[in-house]
Amino acid sequence: MKIIPQKFKIDYHFPVYFVDTLFESGENYLQKIFNECGITEESKFLFVIDGNLIKKNNTLIPGIELFFQLHAYKLAGAPLIIPGGEAAKIDFAVTHKILEAINNYGIDRHSYVVGIGGGAVLDVAGFAAAIAHRGIRHIRIPTTVLSQNDSGVGVKNSINYFGKKNFIGTFAPPFLVINNNAFLNNLSDRDYRCGIPEAIKVGLIKDAAFFDFIETFTEKLNQRDDETIRKLIFRCAELHLQHIAGNDPFEKGNSRPLDYGHWSAHKLEQLSNYKILHGEAVAMGICLDAVYANLIGMLSKDELMRIINLIKILRFNIYAAEMEKTDDNGKNLMIEGLQEFREHLGGRLTIMLIKKIGVGVEVNEMDESLVKSSITFLKKIQ
Amino acid sequence: MKIIPQKFKIDYHFPVYFVDTLFESGENYLQKIFNECGITEESKFLFVIDGNLIKKNNTLIPGIELFFQLHAYKLAGAPLIIPGGEAAKIDFAVTHKILEAINNYGIDRHSYVVGIGGGAVLDVAGFAAAIAHRGIRHIRIPTTVLSQNDSGVGVKNSINYFGKKNFIGTFAPPFLVINNNAFLNNLSDRDYRCGIPEAIKVGLIKDAAFFDFIETFTEKLNQRDDETIRKLIFRCAELHLQHIAGNDPFEKGNSRPLDYGHWSAHKLEQLSNYKILHGEAVAMGICLDAVYANLIGMLSKDELMRIINLIKILRFNIYAAEMEKTDDNGKNLMIEGLQEFREHLGGRLTIMLIKKIGVGVEVNEMDESLVKSSITFLKKIQ
Repeated sequence: MKIIPQKFKIDYHFPVYFVDTLFESGENYLQKIFNECGITEESKFLFVIDGNLIKKNNTLIPGIELFFQLHAYKLAGAPLIIPGGEAAKIDFAVTHKILEAINNYGIDRHSYVVGIGGGAVLDVAGFAAAIAHRGIRHIRIPTTVLSQNDSGVGVKNSINYFGKKNFIGTFAPPFLVINNNAFLNNLSDRDYRCGIPEAIKVGLIKDAAFFDFIETFTEKLNQRDDETIRKLIFRCAELHLQHIAGNDPFEKGNSRPLDYGHWSAHKLEQLSNYKILHGEAVAMGICLDAVYANLIGMLSKDELMRIINLIKILRFNIYAAEMEKTDDNGKNLMIEGLQEFREHLGGRLTIMLIKKIGVGVEVNEMDESLVKSSITFLKKIQ
Repeated sequence: MKIIPQKFKIDYHFPVYFVDTLFESGENYLQKIFNECGITEESKFLFVIDGNLIKKNNTLIPGIELFFQLHAYKLAGAPLIIPGGEAAKIDFAVTHKILEAINNYGIDRHSYVVGIGGGAVLDVAGFAAAIAHRGIRHIRIPTTVLSQNDSGVGVKNSINYFGKKNFIGTFAPPFLVINNNAFLNNLSDRDYRCGIPEAIKVGLIKDAAFFDFIETFTEKLNQRDDETIRKLIFRCAELHLQHIAGNDPFEKGNSRPLDYGHWSAHKLEQLSNYKILHGEAVAMGICLDAVYANLIGMLSKDELMRIINLIKILRFNIYAAEMEKTDDNGKNLMIEGLQEFREHLGGRLTIMLIKKIGVGVEVNEMDESLVKSSITFLKKIQ
């Protein structure tokens, strides 16, 4: 028996920009950003854009076209419009469509696939870019609060498969992320609010002062105050990026602290046929795991109620009927999601709970009857 | 405008083992290797096996089953048998089948997908493992000379799509590679020989002494002498691994020296509907680019003829009618492959040529009429 040990390191780096305007009437920072990132003039770009965004924003595509008329970068055909939200991620169909455009327009590894949209659209565009030619440079321009402060600045992409959320995907750091504040004006109140629970989550597990900030400014957030949401997005993105860089970016181990409140959230989305949006499901998941932490004597009642009140003041439900859905044998389907969560993660079940606001603690089991009691509690006080 | 720069490093490492026997009557090194690699006893394994291998080896599956009966590792269902050769890589169908097994058997990120087979089977098994749950640990057990000395020890996987070779795939280092010498006994003479051109290639661009070794032992290679093929595989794998670790493992730049002779090879395979095997196409591609290098005054006639003679003594064709296939407009289809090669790679066309045996040189253009003259030359002296 002989062995050759193979060993190498890969350096990953990408900037996350925060700008006020991009293709709107204000300044277009794109040229400046492209220059700073060393994008050369003859480079080719394929745009993949969220259909939901296009419905509300009729200046975006003309804005993109104008930019390319004014510069020597090449626009590969008309931007590809794909369904917004979870519809983008169902099976391989939309991925196939993007791959087709990549093939038709001769997009290569030194070209750029630019995703503009919410988390789901960025997920599928990122996945297609990651597997075409084994990886085309990918630029993410998140357009929702949720994607600007969370998924859009991360290193994952995915689509659903076999009806399971994020069943296939890759870890593929983007080339560049641009968070454009002006895109938030296109959001419905519901979509706007849906980004806030991820910020609460990261505050709960990592930064009590950030949780306090959100608690202090609920009224401003409910009024869609621009300065407040900018601060929230910037700090949440910063904590998210720091966490990824400092821990296990490609999740080789068991731990996934950023998934606090998510084991149930993923399942609630699926059980509601994605009528419950990700942010809404996370809001409920946060409450559920906080009640559970209180029931096992980990979290004080005072802090539990601060969390639940914050979620309620921000106009989120803390309970949904999907929490109690059962299969033919009377098994609670949401709780079955624990097993799927473990499988997706692999290895030992590892669930993040909190022992106080700002301090996460991992546990390796969840008591089913206590989860049920937690549901009952939320139902009662909803 | 604000910026948060994201930055992190990932360490990749995996061992490549060389053993005499694995599931054959001799010693089974698997337990020892699993121990050395820290694979714990409760771990779950899904086997994906080359259908061509199974036709010739009826002790493999019983051998696998016996191993799992004797140890506490868990075998997830019956091994999945998939078509061998390029058929495994046509579109998404086989990938889907493997994903289905991963889903049905609850294979997670801490489980192992073990591919046993030739390069194509390892490519599709590696691709499915890389995208399921964003990456399941993947063990490669290459069974051909070609996969043991070349693709199987590398970091790529892929499938064909839109009729284009390797159009989708990822860079995903395996968890572990095991080259089992005994598997070579299952190979037809044709499949056996098909691994040698990659060794010649790596000698031509990196190691004149290795080229000399192959030249010296052609008779032994034609007789399938065990000691000679072991040496050839070990040295070729070693050069391949060194190259990957020392350069640009995930091919961010333009350079792809290991693809010497490959721009035409990929296209010849496709134009022959994969009747010409990869190794046979590479043998022709090596000769073609050597003639071209001679025609542009880069390579001496003596060395050119050494190369061509070596390829011929090893019983490979140096010319195929596919080299002269044209489309309706009379355009040479193989030469069109240069553009596809550039697109797959991205950026500037970069072709490796050799200025002498053991020394590669990159060029950024290929003169079409000189490529045609090279074809004519090979046709004449075939």
